Amino acid sequence: MREFSDLTPLFDPRSVVLVGASEREASVGGRTLANVLDHSDFGGTLHLVNATRPEIRGMRCFRRVAELPAVPELAVIAVPAAGVMEALRDCAALGVKFCVILTSGFGETGDEGRAAEAEMRALAEASGMRLYGPNCPGVTNINKRLGFTFSPAFANDLRRGPIGLATQGGGLGRNLLQSMERGTGFALWCSTGNEVDLQVADFIHYMAGAPDVTVIGTILEGIKDGPRFLAAARAAAEAGKPVVALKVGRSEYGMRAAASHTASLTGSAAVNSAAFRQLGIIEVDDIDELVDVASLLARGRPRGGERIAVFGSSGGACALAADMVGQAGLVLAELAPETTEALAARLPSYAALGNPVDTTTVTLTNPGVIEETLAVVANDPAVSLVMMPMPLDYGPVSHTVAQRMVAAQGHTQTPLVPVWMSERTGAAYRCFAEAGMVPMRSLRNAAKAFRRFVDHGAWRPGTMPAGLGAGLPETPLRTLSEAEGKAMLRQAGLAVPDGVLARSGADAAAVAARMGFPVALKIASPDILHKSDIGGVVLGLRDASAVEAAFAAVTEAGARHHPEARIEGALVERMAPPGGTEILLSVSRDPVLGHVMTCGLGGIHVELLRDVAHRLLPVDAAEAGRMLRELRGFPLLEGLRGAAPCDLDALCRAMAALSALVEARPEDFEEIEINPVRAGAEGEGALVLDAVVTLRD
Amino acid sequence: MREFSDLTPLFDPRSVVLVGASEREASVGGRTLANVLDHSDFGGTLHLVNATRPEIRGMRCFRRVAELPAVPELAVIAVPAAGVMEALRDCAALGVKFCVILTSGFGETGDEGRAAEAEMRALAEASGMRLYGPNCPGVTNINKRLGFTFSPAFANDLRRGPIGLATQGGGLGRNLLQSMERGTGFALWCSTGNEVDLQVADFIHYMAGAPDVTVIGTILEGIKDGPRFLAAARAAAEAGKPVVALKVGRSEYGMRAAASHTASLTGSAAVNSAAFRQLGIIEVDDIDELVDVASLLARGRPRGGERIAVFGSSGGACALAADMVGQAGLVLAELAPETTEALAARLPSYAALGNPVDTTTVTLTNPGVIEETLAVVANDPAVSLVMMPMPLDYGPVSHTVAQRMVAAQGHTQTPLVPVWMSERTGAAYRCFAEAGMVPMRSLRNAAKAFRRFVDHGAWRPGTMPAGLGAGLPETPLRTLSEAEGKAMLRQAGLAVPDGVLARSGADAAAVAARMGFPVALKIASPDILHKSDIGGVVLGLRDASAVEAAFAAVTEAGARHHPEARIEGALVERMAPPGGTEILLSVSRDPVLGHVMTCGLGGIHVELLRDVAHRLLPVDAAEAGRMLRELRGFPLLEGLRGAAPCDLDALCRAMAALSALVEARPEDFEEIEINPVRAGAEGEGALVLDAVVTLRD
Repeated sequence: MREFSDLTPLFDPRSVVLVGASEREASVGGRTLANVLDHSDFGGTLHLVNATRPEIRGMRCFRRVAELPAVPELAVIAVPAAGVMEALRDCAALGVKFCVILTSGFGETGDEGRAAEAEMRALAEASGMRLYGPNCPGVTNINKRLGFTFSPAFANDLRRGPIGLATQGGGLGRNLLQSMERGTGFALWCSTGNEVDLQVADFIHYMAGAPDVTVIGTILEGIKDGPRFLAAARAAAEAGKPVVALKVGRSEYGMRAAASHTASLTGSAAVNSAAFRQLGIIEVDDIDELVDVASLLARGRPRGGERIAVFGSSGGACALAADMVGQAGLVLAELAPETTEALAARLPSYAALGNPVDTTTVTLTNPGVIEETLAVVANDPAVSLVMMPMPLDYGPVSHTVAQRMVAAQGHTQTPLVPVWMSERTGAAYRCFAEAGMVPMRSLRNAAKAFRRFVDHGAWRPGTMPAGLGAGLPETPLRTLSEAEGKAMLRQAGLAVPDGVLARSGADAAAVAARMGFPVALKIASPDILHKSDIGGVVLGLRDASAVEAAFAAVTEAGARHHPEARIEGALVERMAPPGGTEILLSVSRDPVLGHVMTCGLGGIHVELLRDVAHRLLPVDAAEAGRMLRELRGFPLLEGLRGAAPCDLDALCRAMAALSALVEARPEDFEEIEINPVRAGAEGEGALVLDAVVTLRD
Repeated sequence: MREFSDLTPLFDPRSVVLVGASEREASVGGRTLANVLDHSDFGGTLHLVNATRPEIRGMRCFRRVAELPAVPELAVIAVPAAGVMEALRDCAALGVKFCVILTSGFGETGDEGRAAEAEMRALAEASGMRLYGPNCPGVTNINKRLGFTFSPAFANDLRRGPIGLATQGGGLGRNLLQSMERGTGFALWCSTGNEVDLQVADFIHYMAGAPDVTVIGTILEGIKDGPRFLAAARAAAEAGKPVVALKVGRSEYGMRAAASHTASLTGSAAVNSAAFRQLGIIEVDDIDELVDVASLLARGRPRGGERIAVFGSSGGACALAADMVGQAGLVLAELAPETTEALAARLPSYAALGNPVDTTTVTLTNPGVIEETLAVVANDPAVSLVMMPMPLDYGPVSHTVAQRMVAAQGHTQTPLVPVWMSERTGAAYRCFAEAGMVPMRSLRNAAKAFRRFVDHGAWRPGTMPAGLGAGLPETPLRTLSEAEGKAMLRQAGLAVPDGVLARSGADAAAVAARMGFPVALKIASPDILHKSDIGGVVLGLRDASAVEAAFAAVTEAGARHHPEARIEGALVERMAPPGGTEILLSVSRDPVLGHVMTCGLGGIHVELLRDVAHRLLPVDAAEAGRMLRELRGFPLLEGLRGAAPCDLDALCRAMAALSALVEARPEDFEEIEINPVRAGAEGEGALVLDAVVTLRD
């Protein structure tokens, strides 16, 4: 993996060359020049390159990059597609370290464009020069007010703040910036375009170290380099900066559309989500939710277990807010007696003083009461967040209320979160926005964002995923026979029933006699996977003649159903003790993120209820325990309604051993499916009953 | 149940008296007068009553209602609380048919207010006069521009349309009206206040017959009279008018807050939702969703199976939209070859012509293309709805795009639904709103509303609930012994194992011998419900001595665990054949909506997974089948993975028989719990293994 570069010269360069500067206002070069000269606070050196004009807006133009009197830190490439490669070569020759390629018309247009991108990538690798783009909107550093971008919207979206954004997709990225309308402030934004070199991961890594970024937002369509992304997310987690992510592609339609839009591999959505959870990345369901959650994190940090107060002047809206809090699985704070007394002294007798606090409309006629009562509620020691449902815009009346609420925020550290439920927005709404209180736009949205916030507070890092087995080339696969597979698992430390491969019925009977009855017999063939389905498995054989008969039966069934199969004989296994709980356990390889472990209870749980947990490797015993606890069916393992609890320790050890096997040689394994492992009662262990191991050759 | 009145004189009166008319602008009487005179198109006769002033604004005032020269159709009561009762008595004496009581200060303030409300109710019942209120905002008839209301917001919210609204809670109701900002049009609004007489149900019933209402929206905190509500909803369903409902109280917090806000009983949220589904009421999760769904239904009617086209100019937004469509379980339309060809002729080569259709930004520079291409997509025969993601407000550019999209709506019957994803709203957004295209505010919201729309199209009425057993007074309850309960079920037509009550061990052994072994033995006591938990059940007894020993064991266990219990002996039952699937089946009484049937699979399904289905009675065999099919575990009943399917017919017949038993005498039953009924393989029937019947004495 190429090392992460410090991207400071990209976001805050001391010297810049604009290649393709133009006088034409509508051109990419012209708009970019206007953003730098007219809308940015750029104090460094700016050079212009234009092949034909001696000067633009009174500034000298160089004909080529090669003619520049000094090496700029950053080159901004705005020439038409045909001239990009030459400009890049010039930059590399001069020793430029960073290039932004604004120009489009490459990979997104077809094969020729993709070939050009391969050339760019090769140049970047050979020269050490880093490329951002092509087909990207450029650099938007809001906190420093720097725009090396052609976007005419640059000057409109300049509200400073602590949220850094790295997006795939310019439209969705700009949409996030337009949420400044409700008071969100951003540090910087990049939209990574065709990612010939720098990817979203590089920008996340940069923001993990950038002092003016405390929360990172990202929109992903496809992760280009899984391990790089994981490393960047780990850096953010270590820096204590939450990452809020929207991943496009959670349905078939979405995966297909995202793949065709960005031409990148999209792994499984379930694996993505599991990786996010492991890394403490907060996955959101929509773009407005990204803003809700990021802005909440920008206002305060959760520690888990936060309790909510609802404060409003409409009884109906307060009731609905409380309902949403409950539906989101959040907890309403129990107010202290002193709080209730203080409220009683200031509110009418028919106000509701519990939580929700319904001041009634007295606050509309006597807004001074709001500031005092709201501060009292917010400063109650049990309250961590205040949700303020605002169902209506009553014009100047609402504006006064909002002003008092903004004033109340001055008396408390607890975030006061207005929920502006009305479609009508006016002075009151703007008052909240200007104060940076980022009104949420529905109670449901607010409750959901609160839940994400509280959950993130409860997140603790477990084993961190490393992308083992990610991004490997295609290769032929080879499936081991059950006996070989089980032998491998036994060696890896998993408990496997005693088993011997028998070549004939007599052989099988002799093996069984040595082993002790009862035994199971299973056809042995590298070409037959679903042995039970064809009658290739017989259980509970109690004597030698039964074993011989079963040998004949399973080999005959195998030959009949799979005439081409190589049949090696039958596996004779000591019967596992009866009872216990069957669990499906597997490790498979996601092409983007690498090896992932999956577990689920047997029977209907996986198939009908899709009740499974996933983790990227490595998985240790503690992490395995957390996986099992994620299952809705977990109470069955603990012993529901007086049933005996199963041997969770043994199960967790088996999962950790399976992980260790793959960790040691990730490039050798494509998939290991243990279906099932049977966990006995406490102390009885967990036994691999069937396993299919698929190797990469 | 009191009959529904025709509420036309309330919403469109020919003559009105305003009791408590006032010159003071800030008073209830003054604001109401201003709304009638200055903001309404009222062409009828208006009388004013004021005890002290001879005239107001040049109009004569009568001192009392009794002095009026004619009987007005509607009286609007705006006097202080102390004078309300006298005014109502005057109205009743004069023969007024409808009174709106705007005044507050009654039930919501305490016992005295509740006593006054009881007096009002008695007057209404005695006189036949109908009362709306008190503590309500009055009449808002938007289509006729009539406001008999004190709300200063009346004049702001007058966008006409086909959606009628009946809400509990004025703040949330007015919030819905403020959605006019995005183009929603409403016919009328009432917020029912303290519901001394007319309830939400009465208004829904009125709207079911009102010609200018085609969609009904409602917000409910508590249903006062369950059967009345059910009857009104049935009337709406029969009139083909969808009801979109937000019910507050789906969590404990919400139930508690709603109950304290409206002082009404709140039944179980699960039962409410089940009743809504039976009646075709579309239950929504939040107030903005109510607007989304109602406005979609105001633009077109679903038939089920609608397919979606996504049309936009941002690849990222299109991909996210497609993802939301997929996540909502909706289907993207497959465009006809002619459609794709027509698009190819008008769009650049790098546009995406499938579905989603991504025009690319060519439409920003050449907006004429939008109108043509959008109409082509919308008129594709496979397309029923078009989702148009608009991630950004680009000022005038977006405005032009919006204008072309509005023009395209002129070329197609297919609803074009803009999704305005940006927090910034300007001319483009207003352009959609003014055209009545009601932009949705997020892709997730749009997909969810589409899903509700499509699902409603697929809804077909089954058996309609009637509110059997609703609203009964409290009474002592009596639980039958297992033998009595089973006898009752046997008589009702359910299959029950042969069973005889034995008084002694010898008696039990003799009974068993006659019946044939094996048998089960269960302690018989009206005071012991959970027999298994105390060792009061022994299964599989194979001979007389085992039966005698078991008799001694179960009666001893009963006496030990419940020293006070009356022990009648033990029930000897023929053992049910082994195998089959256990199902929990019950009928219980919701205090508001009446008897409701619940079914779920035994074992973990009910307890751990809460996988149950509910229906208000009556339930016939067909409806029972639909209940079972709602269960996530239903594939287990059908025979998952080659297992034998169970006797669904017998199960459905048992459910219908249980329903019929309760239907015949709903007031006699409190609860019947059959846990379990065991369904054998096809043709083997469904056998009641245990049952607890609780009667109302």
